[in-house]
Amino acid sequence: MWWVRALRTKAEFVASLRDGRTVYFKGHKIEDITRDPFCERVIAHLGLEFEIPENPQYRDLVTFSPDGKTRYSRYFKLPENSEDLLKRSQIIDLGTRLASTVVILIKEIGTDCLFTLNIISKQMDKQLHTDYFNRVKRYHDYCMKNDLAMAVAQTDVKGDRSLGPSEQEHEDYYVRIVEERSDGIVVRGAKAHTSYGPFANEIMVIPTRALAEKDEQYAVAFAVPANTKGVKMIASPFGGTSSSEFHNPISSKHHMVESITLFDDVFVPWDRVFMKGETQFAGPLALTFVEYHRFTAISYKAPILDLLIGAGISMAQMNGIIGASHARDKIAELIRYGETVKGLTKQAAINCRMVEGLAVPDPVYSNIAKWHFASNYHQHVALVQDLTGGLTVTGPSEDDLRSPDTGPSLRKYLGGKKGVGAENRLRMINLVRDLTASDFGGYNEILQIHAEGSIEASKLTLFRQYNAKNCVELARKIANVGNGLSE
Amino acid sequence: MWWVRALRTKAEFVASLRDGRTVYFKGHKIEDITRDPFCERVIAHLGLEFEIPENPQYRDLVTFSPDGKTRYSRYFKLPENSEDLLKRSQIIDLGTRLASTVVILIKEIGTDCLFTLNIISKQMDKQLHTDYFNRVKRYHDYCMKNDLAMAVAQTDVKGDRSLGPSEQEHEDYYVRIVEERSDGIVVRGAKAHTSYGPFANEIMVIPTRALAEKDEQYAVAFAVPANTKGVKMIASPFGGTSSSEFHNPISSKHHMVESITLFDDVFVPWDRVFMKGETQFAGPLALTFVEYHRFTAISYKAPILDLLIGAGISMAQMNGIIGASHARDKIAELIRYGETVKGLTKQAAINCRMVEGLAVPDPVYSNIAKWHFASNYHQHVALVQDLTGGLTVTGPSEDDLRSPDTGPSLRKYLGGKKGVGAENRLRMINLVRDLTASDFGGYNEILQIHAEGSIEASKLTLFRQYNAKNCVELARKIANVGNGLSE
Amino acid sequence: MWWVRALRTKAEFVASLRDGRTVYFKGHKIEDITRDPFCERVIAHLGLEFEIPENPQYRDLVTFSPDGKTRYSRYFKLPENSEDLLKRSQIIDLGTRLASTVVILIKEIGTDCLFTLNIISKQMDKQLHTDYFNRVKRYHDYCMKNDLAMAVAQTDVKGDRSLGPSEQEHEDYYVRIVEERSDGIVVRGAKAHTSYGPFANEIMVIPTRALAEKDEQYAVAFAVPANTKGVKMIASPFGGTSSSEFHNPISSKHHMVESITLFDDVFVPWDRVFMKGETQFAGPLALTFVEYHRFTAISYKAPILDLLIGAGISMAQMNGIIGASHARDKIAELIRYGETVKGLTKQAAINCRMVEGLAVPDPVYSNIAKWHFASNYHQHVALVQDLTGGLTVTGPSEDDLRSPDTGPSLRKYLGGKKGVGAENRLRMINLVRDLTASDFGGYNEILQIHAEGSIEASKLTLFRQYNAKNCVELARKIANVGNGLSE
Amino acid sequence: MWWVRALRTKAEFVASLRDGRTVYFKGHKIEDITRDPFCERVIAHLGLEFEIPENPQYRDLVTFSPDGKTRYSRYFKLPENSEDLLKRSQIIDLGTRLASTVVILIKEIGTDCLFTLNIISKQMDKQLHTDYFNRVKRYHDYCMKNDLAMAVAQTDVKGDRSLGPSEQEHEDYYVRIVEERSDGIVVRGAKAHTSYGPFANEIMVIPTRALAEKDEQYAVAFAVPANTKGVKMIASPFGGTSSSEFHNPISSKHHMVESITLFDDVFVPWDRVFMKGETQFAGPLALTFVEYHRFTAISYKAPILDLLIGAGISMAQMNGIIGASHARDKIAELIRYGETVKGLTKQAAINCRMVEGLAVPDPVYSNIAKWHFASNYHQHVALVQDLTGGLTVTGPSEDDLRSPDTGPSLRKYLGGKKGVGAENRLRMINLVRDLTASDFGGYNEILQIHAEGSIEASKLTLFRQYNAKNCVELARKIANVGNGLSE
Repeated sequence: MWWVRALRTKAEFVASLRDGRTVYFKGHKIEDITRDPFCERVIAHLGLEFEIPENPQYRDLVTFSPDGKTRYSRYFKLPENSEDLLKRSQIIDLGTRLASTVVILIKEIGTDCLFTLNIISKQMDKQLHTDYFNRVKRYHDYCMKNDLAMAVAQTDVKGDRSLGPSEQEHEDYYVRIVEERSDGIVVRGAKAHTSYGPFANEIMVIPTRALAEKDEQYAVAFAVPANTKGVKMIASPFGGTSSSEFHNPISSKHHMVESITLFDDVFVPWDRVFMKGETQFAGPLALTFVEYHRFTAISYKAPILDLLIGAGISMAQMNGIIGASHARDKIAELIRYGETVKGLTKQAAINCRMVEGLAVPDPVYSNIAKWHFASNYHQHVALVQDLTGGLTVTGPSEDDLRSPDTGPSLRKYLGGKKGVGAENRLRMINLVRDLTASDFGGYNEILQIHAEGSIEASKLTLFRQYNAKNCVELARKIANVGNGLSE
Repeated sequence: MWWVRALRTKAEFVASLRDGRTVYFKGHKIEDITRDPFCERVIAHLGLEFEIPENPQYRDLVTFSPDGKTRYSRYFKLPENSEDLLKRSQIIDLGTRLASTVVILIKEIGTDCLFTLNIISKQMDKQLHTDYFNRVKRYHDYCMKNDLAMAVAQTDVKGDRSLGPSEQEHEDYYVRIVEERSDGIVVRGAKAHTSYGPFANEIMVIPTRALAEKDEQYAVAFAVPANTKGVKMIASPFGGTSSSEFHNPISSKHHMVESITLFDDVFVPWDRVFMKGETQFAGPLALTFVEYHRFTAISYKAPILDLLIGAGISMAQMNGIIGASHARDKIAELIRYGETVKGLTKQAAINCRMVEGLAVPDPVYSNIAKWHFASNYHQHVALVQDLTGGLTVTGPSEDDLRSPDTGPSLRKYLGGKKGVGAENRLRMINLVRDLTASDFGGYNEILQIHAEGSIEASKLTLFRQYNAKNCVELARKIANVGNGLSE
Repeated sequence: MWWVRALRTKAEFVASLRDGRTVYFKGHKIEDITRDPFCERVIAHLGLEFEIPENPQYRDLVTFSPDGKTRYSRYFKLPENSEDLLKRSQIIDLGTRLASTVVILIKEIGTDCLFTLNIISKQMDKQLHTDYFNRVKRYHDYCMKNDLAMAVAQTDVKGDRSLGPSEQEHEDYYVRIVEERSDGIVVRGAKAHTSYGPFANEIMVIPTRALAEKDEQYAVAFAVPANTKGVKMIASPFGGTSSSEFHNPISSKHHMVESITLFDDVFVPWDRVFMKGETQFAGPLALTFVEYHRFTAISYKAPILDLLIGAGISMAQMNGIIGASHARDKIAELIRYGETVKGLTKQAAINCRMVEGLAVPDPVYSNIAKWHFASNYHQHVALVQDLTGGLTVTGPSEDDLRSPDTGPSLRKYLGGKKGVGAENRLRMINLVRDLTASDFGGYNEILQIHAEGSIEASKLTLFRQYNAKNCVELARKIANVGNGLSE
Repeated sequence: MWWVRALRTKAEFVASLRDGRTVYFKGHKIEDITRDPFCERVIAHLGLEFEIPENPQYRDLVTFSPDGKTRYSRYFKLPENSEDLLKRSQIIDLGTRLASTVVILIKEIGTDCLFTLNIISKQMDKQLHTDYFNRVKRYHDYCMKNDLAMAVAQTDVKGDRSLGPSEQEHEDYYVRIVEERSDGIVVRGAKAHTSYGPFANEIMVIPTRALAEKDEQYAVAFAVPANTKGVKMIASPFGGTSSSEFHNPISSKHHMVESITLFDDVFVPWDRVFMKGETQFAGPLALTFVEYHRFTAISYKAPILDLLIGAGISMAQMNGIIGASHARDKIAELIRYGETVKGLTKQAAINCRMVEGLAVPDPVYSNIAKWHFASNYHQHVALVQDLTGGLTVTGPSEDDLRSPDTGPSLRKYLGGKKGVGAENRLRMINLVRDLTASDFGGYNEILQIHAEGSIEASKLTLFRQYNAKNCVELARKIANVGNGLSE
């Protein structure tokens, strides 16, 4: 083989999940997730991550070699410039596209977090004379060299969202340090929405928000193996369970899963502790993570945006309405939507800024792209549904189509435009239903709004991060307003 | 009993469905729909229609008595004024509300069609010296006196939607007359989206569009009992199949179902034929039906609009964000949306116009209400999902909550605002998921766009039906433009 | 004459304005506003108010007679039911329509304020044993019997809008009582946006917001004649000054004007003081006024909504694009917009609630109508501009059209659709420019956003005033959430 | 001087306009436009074009030197790659910014046209063996070496827009060839919206649309000096005429002007004819021009986008509402709007495609940027107006502020947030009114919708030019739809 590599095979990944981890699903503890029917589908989906580098067509793109000999997953490459970010965006797009628009995310989010810890640890070390950076570096190397699957548990369960961590009904609504020992710390609490937590090798934990000085016990970042004692993951059952490829061409094969992740007094050794009480850095850590992660988010939206366009055009053709002006309007809207997000994503990489030696995607373009995507998704789903027609939920099942009693009539009557054929048309309709009007479609809608931070958070970040100096000066100059003006 | 009534009991209704009808579901013919598990849920839902009049609180509203003795379902009352339309709107709202927002529709749509046939038959008789009106009247009486459940099969399967009935790949893409006999006609074709077809006593058929002179064979309206030879209904399996009241509080109990309805050379005796070849009245018939039916549509939206508001407020309270300005904005938007549709619905009744002695809802307000509802639904779903949070699809199952292993932790961590409790919060979250982010939620989205005519159709009707005379005259008067202007 | 009336003639109104009032315009004090060219146009416009009742076609509608003998302006009629509010809405519409969409407002706003004072004075008298109601009643009679023109000065100049009255840089940012004397009070401060202040007989003053207990000196309501010593009005010069009927068919003849109204230690006798220090009633007074005034607002929008529709249709016809689907879409949107606002306005009257014996328009529908109007105005202006074409601002002047050098060519080349003619087309284009793309058009845009309270205020009122009980109960019932839930 | 240059001075430009051209304004022929008060303001504005290169800070950017010796305006540089397009975008931005957001456009549009003719002439020569390219090249050199001001007259007056050129009421609704002579052609007709036509040295004419074979006489492109016999320009009087810098800080100094340009049997020698009867190339010529010109358009929008942001922020600060969440929302929206257009503009340059050796901006991104800008402009104007307040049209004049009678009170009462001062605040308010709510603001609104092609045209171009292959293939692959499908 032309390269020495550190990449794992799918089989190695699957084997690594048999480690005694504690995963609950529908009220029961799963003994071996690699042999559970629900989990098998998820694992088959995640296995793509390890199959892609074996394809010669992709391997140069999806790996990198720091020393010219060993090749690692490119996800681990610390971004040094726009080019690195653009390539990162490309591999996120590629994996998601090959997985029929369902993001894989066992490398993306973990490295988003590693880059963030890299930056913040340097800043903490500089300001507070701590020694976090070396820990982070060792941990980064460890994950990279073992090609690990990583999950990030950031969002606390929060209780009353109008109150801070210290003001809640009980102390544990945000993950916190309950004991400090000579060899490490003990943490307690629960995190929500841990993507692929039950299928990761490593669980990384960071604060979810800026903290006040009094919230010292909540200022904690660390990483633990998924099978660590006291880590319990309750996998969510939602998002679709159909196994019919005909009715659910995406979700029958690809499935994203989140867990509520409990930390029941979990011990973390010092070498895996990346923040302990430095409240003033909780906000920057949370924010920098989000900046990387929103860039990941907008990168993995490209395939679903293309699919909305492609499905919209296909249905308009099959229904014979591609020439109607309202159909052309809707398709133009879908194109505008998709290409706006994709174009702004590229601008986020091109306009990156350097922080502590790393390229951070431009938060203005990242957040605009995220906001634009999230706030318009439902309306564009509606356009595709409109082009597709009511049959999306009133049509027959595959069995009806295959039945000798009803099949011939259905083929006669559901043909659409000449040359299309009922089966092709129903397949495309089923794609639209699966993507937009099903348990999986509902999952998608919630994901677009809530994943990687809310729309409100994007707006706020944009307001705060935008450098309006030129704009304000232009207004003042033209208005002829004096400079002595205080803000 | 204080009234003599013609209303059936639920048991009578159920018994009437054992009549040898031909219904297919997932590739098999159902022998007795009253004993099929899928159908049982639908029947339980539809049974409400017959239980409501037995409730003393509702019976005055939902029945009427033309002779002061016998009481019939008020649905059959020919609307003579605004008041009749307002009451009709109220009973549609009531039934749908009691059915947790899922419209019952075995009286509504059928009477929409009866009113329409009443008007059009009078017009045909006047212009063409036919004798349709007496047939319609007898049929109306028959349905009313037997308190029948009715379905309307209007939408043809259409083939290539850019072509008319006569221009398609084969002749049968629109239902048509294939033979005329001394005792009646024989019809062939298929209709899509027949709501509750498999559960109706009567299937009424009308054209779906205006027709050209050459389309004579397609100008046909009639009614047949559901068990008529050659009538075959393929029930759609979509819209949710969960039986968990916890996870799917609406769709586990209430289910709308549509069929593709095949007419395999079905014989219709003359007394049940309401149009035969009068192409010039196909358009007016289709349009008048739609005017009544859109009024039905906007009337049965009120409960789901209220539910979106109520769920949005409840979730904001439970999450502790009711005081946040973005949450208040979203709730105000939900209120605006709901009350606009409801207010315009009332205006449609208040501004009705009299046609052939019947009150027809004002098409301007009906279509604006329908358009407003349909074009904004997805965006308001997004607002409720936003207020609810990611747990909607990342949360635990009921079994997890009940399990001694995970239940206590979930109750501790998912409590939300003090005093709410995890179970209450999860129940409300589940309501939101069921309503907006599930197979049923997807069904709802498609329904809002496609049922009762597309958004494009509403826009076009509005453009055509609006009397712009005052507006144009005002513009000309102010612009001082000469009156000699030709249009 | 068949009636004894208390209505003034236009000449009497004009004469009444020669009373020594202090009005500034463009830096100069106007000695006699009835002889100033700028003011003359406004007075000609306002004179309509006194001409309309003389038209037999309108007089029954625009007047009323409490005793069956004397007839007064209907504006003064205390609304006792929906019918009164609907008629009030009609006369507001009528006056505005006859004034080419520019509201007259010398009766509307004053009576909005009188109704409000009627209610609040009763409430204060009941709770605080004051004697305000009799003063209000006498004042109401005085205005009615003398058929006076009234302005209302509500909006304080406010200084830093994030601070309350007592927290500002100086004490006078909100109008306040600076001295209490045996015979009355002395007030100081300034109000912004006083519509037609310089043309009113009476200036009524009320608080602009809810007040804290410490703001006692700011809780003041009163009325003074416009020529009272210390009252100074600075009329705004904006909103268009063209006198060309061809280029500015509306604004050359109709002009709304606001003043900044200064109260330089103005003495008010007790009989004209309607609130003095009752801080707890400042909020209710401001809010009730706004509820009446928003109803006035949505009533006077009807003509401009009709004009947008009429101008849009006319231009589409003249340009030959009425058959294009994008043009039909835009016109349907204009109709939807206009009829939604108009329909909700009627609902606001129909759903009025009774407070202290008076009918108050439903705040839910009023605010939705106002919000809908204000938040969509610009976008609908854009639609009309789109249908009209670039000639709106690149076309020729009337002189070019009349010139023998250029006129014939312009008539040849700017004809539009056959039969229209260049002059008619240019006149309609000029109407669109005047209405939407001129100093007057800009005035309109600002008016729609800011007059009668901001969009934010409408949203907040809606959120607060909406009775969500039914909605929340429906959500809880369906979600099966326990009743013990605290809010 | 360090460079030999071909650039003209402002004085040389002004002198060149005294050439006997025929310009009408308000019904009169202007004898010398350099001495007419209306024109003087425009000329002062356009003079900037010649002053900018004299500023050492800008000259490297705004000029280029093909031979390393002589420097020409960079506008004339044929774009060979993305970098050339980005620089072109920058100089358009710079000029417009220095002109307070009013585009200068006497180089931009002419070179857009020259680039287009360069491409199309090559294509015609290849396909039809004509010799247009050499003519175009000579003409390009001539304009460049003499640093000429150019206008482009493209939009025909069109008559009935639903009819083609040959179907109109008379033959001259589109500019056409009325005679062919041995030395050239004679053209007749009129063009609308010729930007700065009266102030250009050269008038270039191209077709406005695709043409049918029968429209041969309308397939004509050429250029003539502005003073050519038979060329008559009627300058539009709209867009603001105030000379007060205080009230109209932009439009008192900067003014765009369009003409209706008449061609009364104008002779054009062969060397200046660039298309004559080649109907099949009329569409490509019109479209390619539009592709360049829309890129110009989105480039010159950047300053106004920045100004909306800057004015919005400034007003929120001055009014003391910058901390209010609704104000932050509006500002975030303004930023999103501005940066989306700017980011997509860069993408249009980055994704250019090479046609006949020239870099053409990507039409997908150009049209999305244009559409996004044009369809959202009014709504963002509304946001700025909302942040600014009603004083925008109800405030005082400068004279009131300077008057000893009223000035002190106005300074006391209109101060806004502490430290701002009434004059500064009024100046910023005036900027907002001038930009958005005045004759000039109206001009801006029309310009955004109609200049550089309508929104409908952008949508249609997007629909047609978008390569949806990847999207459709993705949909088919996931839906598992057979490849045999015909389109």
